[in-house]
Amino acid sequence: MLETTIAAIRPPDEPAMAAARDLQGRLTKPAGSLGALEELSVRLAGLAGTCPPPLPEPAAVAIFAGDHGVHAQGVTPWPQEVTAQMIGNFLAGGAVVNAFARQAGASVTVVDVGVATALPVDPDAERDGPRLVEANVRRGTRDMTVTAALTRDEARAAVETGIRIAGELVDAGAGILLTGDMGIANTTPSAALIAALTGVDPAEATGRGTGVDDETYRRKVGVVRAALRRHEPDPADPLGVLAAVGGLEHAALAGLVLGAAARRVPVLLDGVIAASAALVAAALAPDAVGAMVAGHRSAEPGATVALRHLGLDPLIDLGLRLGEGTGALLALPVVTGAVRVLHEVATFDSAGVSEK
Amino acid sequence: MLETTIAAIRPPDEPAMAAARDLQGRLTKPAGSLGALEELSVRLAGLAGTCPPPLPEPAAVAIFAGDHGVHAQGVTPWPQEVTAQMIGNFLAGGAVVNAFARQAGASVTVVDVGVATALPVDPDAERDGPRLVEANVRRGTRDMTVTAALTRDEARAAVETGIRIAGELVDAGAGILLTGDMGIANTTPSAALIAALTGVDPAEATGRGTGVDDETYRRKVGVVRAALRRHEPDPADPLGVLAAVGGLEHAALAGLVLGAAARRVPVLLDGVIAASAALVAAALAPDAVGAMVAGHRSAEPGATVALRHLGLDPLIDLGLRLGEGTGALLALPVVTGAVRVLHEVATFDSAGVSEK
Repeated sequence: MLETTIAAIRPPDEPAMAAARDLQGRLTKPAGSLGALEELSVRLAGLAGTCPPPLPEPAAVAIFAGDHGVHAQGVTPWPQEVTAQMIGNFLAGGAVVNAFARQAGASVTVVDVGVATALPVDPDAERDGPRLVEANVRRGTRDMTVTAALTRDEARAAVETGIRIAGELVDAGAGILLTGDMGIANTTPSAALIAALTGVDPAEATGRGTGVDDETYRRKVGVVRAALRRHEPDPADPLGVLAAVGGLEHAALAGLVLGAAARRVPVLLDGVIAASAALVAAALAPDAVGAMVAGHRSAEPGATVALRHLGLDPLIDLGLRLGEGTGALLALPVVTGAVRVLHEVATFDSAGVSEK
Repeated sequence: MLETTIAAIRPPDEPAMAAARDLQGRLTKPAGSLGALEELSVRLAGLAGTCPPPLPEPAAVAIFAGDHGVHAQGVTPWPQEVTAQMIGNFLAGGAVVNAFARQAGASVTVVDVGVATALPVDPDAERDGPRLVEANVRRGTRDMTVTAALTRDEARAAVETGIRIAGELVDAGAGILLTGDMGIANTTPSAALIAALTGVDPAEATGRGTGVDDETYRRKVGVVRAALRRHEPDPADPLGVLAAVGGLEHAALAGLVLGAAARRVPVLLDGVIAASAALVAAALAPDAVGAMVAGHRSAEPGATVALRHLGLDPLIDLGLRLGEGTGALLALPVVTGAVRVLHEVATFDSAGVSEK
């Protein structure tokens, strides 16, 4: 499934992009006055292969949840159980991602791809609102400072879970996918993935996550450095990098990105977990970048390193560092607005407005 | 009406702000992880005087339209008729502001406060969608390089029109007002207002508006400089500044801001025209700043000068320079989201989620 998905990912459609550029120049506004929204609309036309591209509606957030063996190294003050507890909160509709999703009219799908502890919910219960998909590959990764976090087969299974979820959401009508994540300690593997795939020093890729103190931060950088020294992951082997230092939610998010790109549907990236997964996706299929839209600039420095490597500028920069998909959801109206302009705005000709 | 409105504007309510800060710390997310949204929610609690503050719904965009005598100085390549033509476009729903307002569920009210040429619409016609208010104070300002743009009475009449519109929109249920504007050449009086009220050099306050060439830009800076030299407006006399170098839409927007602040309803600022009007409002009533939310960072440099002077950080920064209210509309979901968090997100206690 991974290989056929990668093979289906194509470069952007140049004629559709040219048509979008031309249309932007004829709409009733000064040329260029919509700033970054104009180029975004051109990129989305290129992805869809048509101008105007379809409105990115409805939106679907996929929250992949996993735990991390590296939690044992003291990289965060939060107990591992919070991953499972927050799944309960997502399913009850009580988290920030739920509030933002309700506001944006987006569906929420929670995927247990690697949670270590028992979920505080009955996975088979009927419920309104957020859906739970049980696709646990293993109950948390191994500690990457001791051994590889995953086997290659586990990494592949999680990637393919993400591809499958993308396909299901697109089949159900989603016009845009939003990345979400939950996993206590997951900024640590994110930093390791970013350092491994971009070549920056671990200190540059590592941030304070939920807001750790100086001592924990120094330990966290040391943990990332130690894991990279132990495994020396080869950036030319993205699945190997994932297996060595990744997380199950990172792998699944890489799959979600690839699945969206194969279906020519945009995928709106949230924060540093998404950005690190996007690096994996781009390493597997460089043209997948054409499907990516960077939702926001996370306060995590690794996110900026990863987005720069991907050549993506984020739409929103408000110092968020929550994850869950919250930053992507805040950016969604900007993406929709950028496309809506191509659908709904009158041209100078049609509106009888003089040009300069 | 101006004096009673100013007298009604109060400082933010400290207990409501403290309650919002306390609530932010108990919600199921790491403290501070919502970045700028947390402080925004605190400010809006202070404005409303209650925690949580009401959701800023429904939203109402008020587009004030006016023309400018200084157009005769060649500060823009666009013909003056475009102001009236764009009102036709707004009322027909064909402009970018209409597309964004439909997406955001916001109403649009177009106020002719000073258009010079005939509107291409019957002002008394029944129509769906955007409403037209005929409140023309005069058919465009005078050329500020030759004489005062307005008399004090004209400036006051336009300010009071803005106050009246704010009151009508709030009485009709609006939970937030968004500033919109239309007026060919109106970035020139904006620059003059900003230079006069902040003390920066005209070159720092003047931008390229719709994208003028180098020669026009130099002429524009010279025009702003000449107008300020001629009138030497006194920043301690905001109505005098408005009369000397302002526009009718600027005056009305200043009134809208004051009217919103007096009603303790937030006003979401669009670009440089709004920012210059907000300076006037703040000069008249310093506590009005508590009602202001900066929607976006316009590409016009004067907007950044004005927002810095007001102590406001914009929510979105995408290089927009269209006006109409478009930047404010793009930022609206961020404002709503910031407040929604206080209403809908579970606390650690209520959700059974462990703290660190």
